[in-house]
Parts: sequence; C-alpha cells; structure tokens
Amino acid sequence: MSNNPYKSIKEQAYEANMALPRLGLVLFTFGNVSVVDRDKGVFAIKPSGVPYELLKPKQIVIVDFDANVVEGKHRPSSDTKTHAVLYKHWEKIGGIVHTHSTYATAWAQAQRDIPIFGTTHADHLTVDVPCAPPMDDDMIKGNYEYETGFQIMNCFKDKKLSYEEVEMILVGNHAPFTWGKDADKAVYNAAVLEEVARMALLTEQANPQAPRLKDTLIRKHFERKHGPDAYYGQE
Amino acid sequence: MSNNPYKSIKEQAYEANMALPRLGLVLFTFGNVSVVDRDKGVFAIKPSGVPYELLKPKQIVIVDFDANVVEGKHRPSSDTKTHAVLYKHWEKIGGIVHTHSTYATAWAQAQRDIPIFGTTHADHLTVDVPCAPPMDDDMIKGNYEYETGFQIMNCFKDKKLSYEEVEMILVGNHAPFTWGKDADKAVYNAAVLEEVARMALLTEQANPQAPRLKDTLIRKHFERKHGPDAYYGQE
Amino acid sequence: MSNNPYKSIKEQAYEANMALPRLGLVLFTFGNVSVVDRDKGVFAIKPSGVPYELLKPKQIVIVDFDANVVEGKHRPSSDTKTHAVLYKHWEKIGGIVHTHSTYATAWAQAQRDIPIFGTTHADHLTVDVPCAPPMDDDMIKGNYEYETGFQIMNCFKDKKLSYEEVEMILVGNHAPFTWGKDADKAVYNAAVLEEVARMALLTEQANPQAPRLKDTLIRKHFERKHGPDAYYGQE
Amino acid sequence: MSNNPYKSIKEQAYEANMALPRLGLVLFTFGNVSVVDRDKGVFAIKPSGVPYELLKPKQIVIVDFDANVVEGKHRPSSDTKTHAVLYKHWEKIGGIVHTHSTYATAWAQAQRDIPIFGTTHADHLTVDVPCAPPMDDDMIKGNYEYETGFQIMNCFKDKKLSYEEVEMILVGNHAPFTWGKDADKAVYNAAVLEEVARMALLTEQANPQAPRLKDTLIRKHFERKHGPDAYYGQE
Repeated sequence: MSNNPYKSIKEQAYEANMALPRLGLVLFTFGNVSVVDRDKGVFAIKPSGVPYELLKPKQIVIVDFDANVVEGKHRPSSDTKTHAVLYKHWEKIGGIVHTHSTYATAWAQAQRDIPIFGTTHADHLTVDVPCAPPMDDDMIKGNYEYETGFQIMNCFKDKKLSYEEVEMILVGNHAPFTWGKDADKAVYNAAVLEEVARMALLTEQANPQAPRLKDTLIRKHFERKHGPDAYYGQE
Repeated sequence: MSNNPYKSIKEQAYEANMALPRLGLVLFTFGNVSVVDRDKGVFAIKPSGVPYELLKPKQIVIVDFDANVVEGKHRPSSDTKTHAVLYKHWEKIGGIVHTHSTYATAWAQAQRDIPIFGTTHADHLTVDVPCAPPMDDDMIKGNYEYETGFQIMNCFKDKKLSYEEVEMILVGNHAPFTWGKDADKAVYNAAVLEEVARMALLTEQANPQAPRLKDTLIRKHFERKHGPDAYYGQE
Repeated sequence: MSNNPYKSIKEQAYEANMALPRLGLVLFTFGNVSVVDRDKGVFAIKPSGVPYELLKPKQIVIVDFDANVVEGKHRPSSDTKTHAVLYKHWEKIGGIVHTHSTYATAWAQAQRDIPIFGTTHADHLTVDVPCAPPMDDDMIKGNYEYETGFQIMNCFKDKKLSYEEVEMILVGNHAPFTWGKDADKAVYNAAVLEEVARMALLTEQANPQAPRLKDTLIRKHFERKHGPDAYYGQE
Repeated sequence: MSNNPYKSIKEQAYEANMALPRLGLVLFTFGNVSVVDRDKGVFAIKPSGVPYELLKPKQIVIVDFDANVVEGKHRPSSDTKTHAVLYKHWEKIGGIVHTHSTYATAWAQAQRDIPIFGTTHADHLTVDVPCAPPMDDDMIKGNYEYETGFQIMNCFKDKKLSYEEVEMILVGNHAPFTWGKDADKAVYNAAVLEEVARMALLTEQANPQAPRLKDTLIRKHFERKHGPDAYYGQE
C-alpha cells in the first residue's frame, strides 16, 4: 500500500474504526467510521460487514461524494451514501461516525431529543441532542441511505442548528451519527454521546421531574471549553 | 480424536460453546450450543454442567435426533431433547444455542414479546421477538425438555412464523433459544437478541409510549441485509 | 506455613476469597469468605480490611465457633461473629460468603424478598429469596454481628425454610449472605444470587405485573438439578 | 525530576489520577485528582485535558491556594480554583477528587441528595450524600470554579455537616467532588460514592417506598469503622 495515494486516510479510517469496539460502542459490525480528503474529493470508509477483529487498513474503501467507489476491492459500508451526502453539503467536517451504541440508540428508538441535564452535556453542546423524526415512506422506499443524509440536514435546518456547533444527532428509530473536524473527534463525540445518553436516562429515573440545565450554566460550561476565552485543555 | 468421525462437528461445537462466555452470554454453565451433521443424522452438544474454562473438544457429546447418545463419555446437556426435537422437525437449521442471557431472560420472565422498536432489530427480523407461553402442567410433568421443543414449534405455528426468517424465541418463564444455518450464526443471533432485548427495555424507560417501528422501515432494513437485492456485507 | 495444621482451610479460604473480585461481587474489601474444619471446630476467614490484591494465604485467620481467634496475626473480618453463629447452629454447612454485591444489596435495601420469576432461579431454590427484616434496636446496640447470625436463623424459622435447601438470604438494609457444603459452592451461590437479583429487577421493569413462576415449573427445574432423579451435570 | 522539591506530591498525584480510569470512574479526561503539601502551601493537580493514557508524572502542575501556578509547564485542570478554595478553607484535607462518574452524576443532575438506604452507605457516612443546589447566576457568570468551592462549603454550613465526617458532595447539575486525609482516600471515596449512588437508584426501582436506614443501624455501622472502638480493618 506504500504508493497508494489514499494511504493516509485509509490508515486514519482504520485506526478510528478500531477505536469503536475498544470504547464499547459496537457489537459485531454495527458501526462505521469515515475520513475525508477534501483535496481529492473522496473519503475512506469501512468495508461492509467485515468484523473488526479481521479488519485491515488495505480493506478500507475509497469513495467519492456521490458514493461511487474510487479505490478498493470491497463493497463499502451500507451507510456510505449517508456519509457522502454529509461530506458534500457540510464542507467543514473531516470525519463521520455511525454506531448503534446502546443508550443513544434507545433514545433514538424512543424518538426523543436527549434533554440537557448537566455540565457533562454542556461541555460539548448547548442544546438537547436532536432526534430527527423517522423518514416519510417515500424517502424510505426510495434511495434510503441517501435520504438519511437529507433527513439529518433537514432536522438541523428545522431546529436552526449549526453542524459546526452540534456534532451529533439521533436518527429516529435508527441510531446515532456523529462528526467532527477529523475522525478522532467524531469517535470522541460518539463516546460522549453514549455517556450523555446513559446519564440522561438515569437522571430521569432518579427524578422524573429533573429540570433542564439553566441557561447560564449551559453557556458557562460550553465557553470554558469552546469560547474565545476557553481555558480547558492545553493551548 | 484424529480418527473420530465426528471430529469436525465436535470441534465446531467446542468453538461455538466457547464463544458464549467471551460474548458475556453465560454465567457458569447456564448455556449450551449444538452443531448438526445432517448426513450422519447426529448433532454435537456440550456435556452437562461442565464449566467452560474446563471444557475440551473431546468432551463434546454426539447425540441422534431422538436424543440417544451415539458417542462420548459424558452426559449431554440437560436441554438435549429440546435440541433434538428442533433438528428433527426444522430441517434447515445447522446450529442451536440456548442461554440464560440477562436481558433476554428478563423479557422471557416478563412473558412478553420484545417489540420491534428500531432498525437494529429490523436488520435481523421483521417481527417482535416471539415469547412462547409457559407450558401446560401436563407437558411440564411429562417429558419436559422434549415438550419444550414442541412448545417452541407450536408458538411458531400459532404466530405463523417461519423458522428460516425468525431465528430466535423466548420460552416464557425460562430463557432464549436461537438457531441458524450453522452454530456461528446461532451464536451471533444469541448476542444480537441480548442487545435487542437490552435496547428495547431502555427504549420503554426513555418513552413508555415508544411506537413500534413502522412497516416501511422494517421492510427496508431487513431487505438490505436479507432481500434478493441485499447490499450489506461482502458477496 | 508447611506445618500449619490449618494450611488446607487457609488455602481454600484464600482461593475462595480471591474468586469474589474475579466474579465482580466486591468493591474494595466489601466481602469475605470462610471455610470450616468441623473436626477441629474452627473456621478460616479473611482478615478485616485487607485489600484483595494484597491478600496472602498466610494472612487468613483461624477462629473457633465462639469467634475466638485460634491462629493468625491479623484481626478477622468484622463479620466473623455472624459466620461463627451460623457454623455453630447449622451443622452441615462448609463455607459462608458475605458480599455487598450491587443488585442483591439493592433488594436487601428495598427490604423485599426476590420473587421467583423463572427457571434460572428455580434451578437453585424453590422459593423467593428470603429477606430478613432489619433487627430490633436492642439487637443492634448489643452484640451486633452475633445477633445478625440469629436474625438470619430466625428468618428461616419464621418462613419454615431449610438451610440445606435454601442457601442464601438477604439481611434487610444490609446485604446478602450465602453458604453451601463448601466455600466454592457458597461463592457459586453468591454469583447466582447476584444474577437472579438482577434478572428479577429487569423483569419487573419489563412487566410490573410479571407473574411468579408456576409451581409445576418450580418443582421440575429444581428436581432436574437436585431431586433423586437429577439429570443435570455429570455423575 | 530528581531534584524537584514537589517530586513526592507529583508522583502521588500521578498515581491517584491513574486510579480513576482503572476504577471505571472517568471517560476520557472527565476527572482530576490533587494532592496537597501543607508545609509548602501548594498542591499538585492534573494538567487540563491531557488523556490518562498519555499522562506522565512530570506533567502534574503545582499550584498555590490562590490557584497561581508555582511549577510546571502545563495549564492545570480547569477545576483548579475549586480545589484551591477547599484546601485553603478545609485545613485537614490532603487530597481532592473530581469525576463525572455515571451514577453519582445522574443524582447530581436529578438535584437530589442520595438517601441513606443501607449499611454500605452507613459504613462511610451517617447522612444522605448532600447535593448542593445549582449556583446563582451571579456566581456562575463571575469566577465560576472559585465560586464552586464556596457553593460546596455553603452547602455544608447550611446542612450543618462536617467535612471531616462527610467526605463527598454532589454539585447540582454538575458532578461529584470527594476528599480525604490523602489522595488515596479521596479516590476510595469517589469509588464508594459511585457504588452507593448506583445501589440507591436500584433500591428505589425495587421499592419506590424503600425506607431510609434507621438511626441505630446508621450509628452502629459507622462506629464499627470509624468510632473510638472501631473494629474494622487492622490497627
């Protein structure tokens, strides 16, 4: 693979995919990560149905933004068109993750946004985690995975959200998608989402009337990590 | 064991049994896997009560479809007659798994079908996971494990289900059985069932009125994995 | 320790104690196992407050049935008197385990017997897991751990239970005790109890009206493991 | 680092921080431990945002009780001012831990004290685990982490609690803080709190009317571990 022009994103995609089982976010093959190369107009994605313990970097498939395979011997993930649509329209994202992680998927199946109950959530986003409604029958019967991408984008439009500020969504009845400036950040977001989903479920069990986090705390925690005067982490 | 005519299915049964503790599906000896050899009219099954950490391939017991031991020094699993009945009547299954995995068993004890709430479920079956009612007292007092096999088949008849399409069942008050074209698929189904059972319980906790998955989505997800134009996995 | 007359039970007690963290039944030092030597009229028990990762066989303490230290440099478990009372009065038990395992302790804190909902439970006992009521203030202020032993025995008398048939109890507001013919069986029972407690809680969540297991099934499952014609396990 | 005057507390802080992921108390960087040196008037704390798997002893930052960095190249934890306030005003504590552990955080988000339901809790503290209310908007918009320290101290004053007897708190909508005579004890308390939080949630699920532990049992269990005649552990 030494002369392969996609070597770098294939290896990045491989490493990011392998982080999913290590973080407890996937059972068998229920998940996939992709990494984009904006200059070449392609992304690298997990081959469909290959178990993580057998996955090799060279099996990663290279696909363009219309979901055509550009390089690779394997069939790409069955969710490839969803990734393609998001890369095409959201021009600043560098990596996308799809999992069926347990708690996030339970909220998606419950068709509920995940309420912002605490600072663990507010450290990462200032709104409830959005849950897109299930698609219309026309969309499902049509180009399903392609339409899933539009369902995600439409949900962000309807709720007036920015994909640069909110890097995660639940697709109703289905499961979560997360993204970020690169694949590592997208994987990080997938793990954060799962923990936030779990804490929110337990919070409602401890107190069915648990109040949403108040606005001043939402703002404070988000800004200390992400604002102009952020003081979390190293410079 | 080099000349043993059952060497192949004994080794397959050993490997498939050892996958159960690795997947977190059994405590102590609460589970068993069998592998059939249709040509010879026998199946290989775990010996009763032998801890997984001590199990050896040569201890696997060979049994015919009337549950008579054909080869092996150990007593076969106490659930052997249930396996025998299913192999005898369902002619296309190649492996069977029985576990007491935590969440699937909780639904069996609750005597409820597991509602189809999302695509994780629909990727594997298009109906609620069936729960057979507890047996009549006559059946229990009679040839219990033998009757368990018929209880499973009767439930499929009553609900008009095909064992080739639905590869799992909960036996009310007891625990799950899964099967498949081979033992690996049956083990895979046992792990999928446990995860689906867990997600469904959490879904109802997040939303007691969570709606069943709509038919178009059920159909779409099942067909992308199993339909004539399936595009999941490698060819 | 080669000439130590208690070498055998000290080593057994060491091994059985070390099984608790491996089975996920203890946090830090919240548990202890003892092993009796009926001929010598003593038992071997974990020293108090020693972390499992530092525990050595020679640190195990030898105590008589009045809880006097017979051999050993360490102070025995703070629950030693409870063990002593049970060994003194229940003459056929060979090992005792005390843990604060999560789900069993939750039921003890809820002050509820664990309902028998399925065959996983019935494979081990034919009744609800008993929960002894919290002690009277007089008993608590008196010889507390000694009285805990009597509280356990009184609960069995009140409920007309046999300690040879039911090898586990919850002490209300406190935590579980289990026992058996030897320490390995007592440890096994502690792990079974934790799993039964977890399944029962999940069962009530899946169906708040879940019915108790019917008597014919209780009887059938118990007898196939423990009756005169038992056919579970190897002879 | 051999001549570094803070070598000892840096190494202690390193070891105590590394215990958090081992005990399952942190995801990514969501937690920090500090160790004080009262003679030098400084404490050692985790650098902000450094992943545990990359953390090195030399990266630990030395800070005084007004939160000024005294030694170290990294920016200290974003929660440093909270630690500084507690060290300055509570003169007998030697270590502080902050985590976002799942169950304790759920109770903090539910804005509820954790009821004392059993002896696992009473072995460590004689009161419900206090939950400080969310701060006023003025405090949040001001010197937030500094004010968090005062919010903790004010909660103890309002509830007439002693920080030497009660070594843990939930900060409403946020997450837990624990402390102790040294960092190891503070880490121990963080793990105990998480387990107590989990057991209490499960207790209410098993019995929504579960009664608080009665006073005689609270007193008895605490005193056998901490009273003048304590008989738990080795002398």
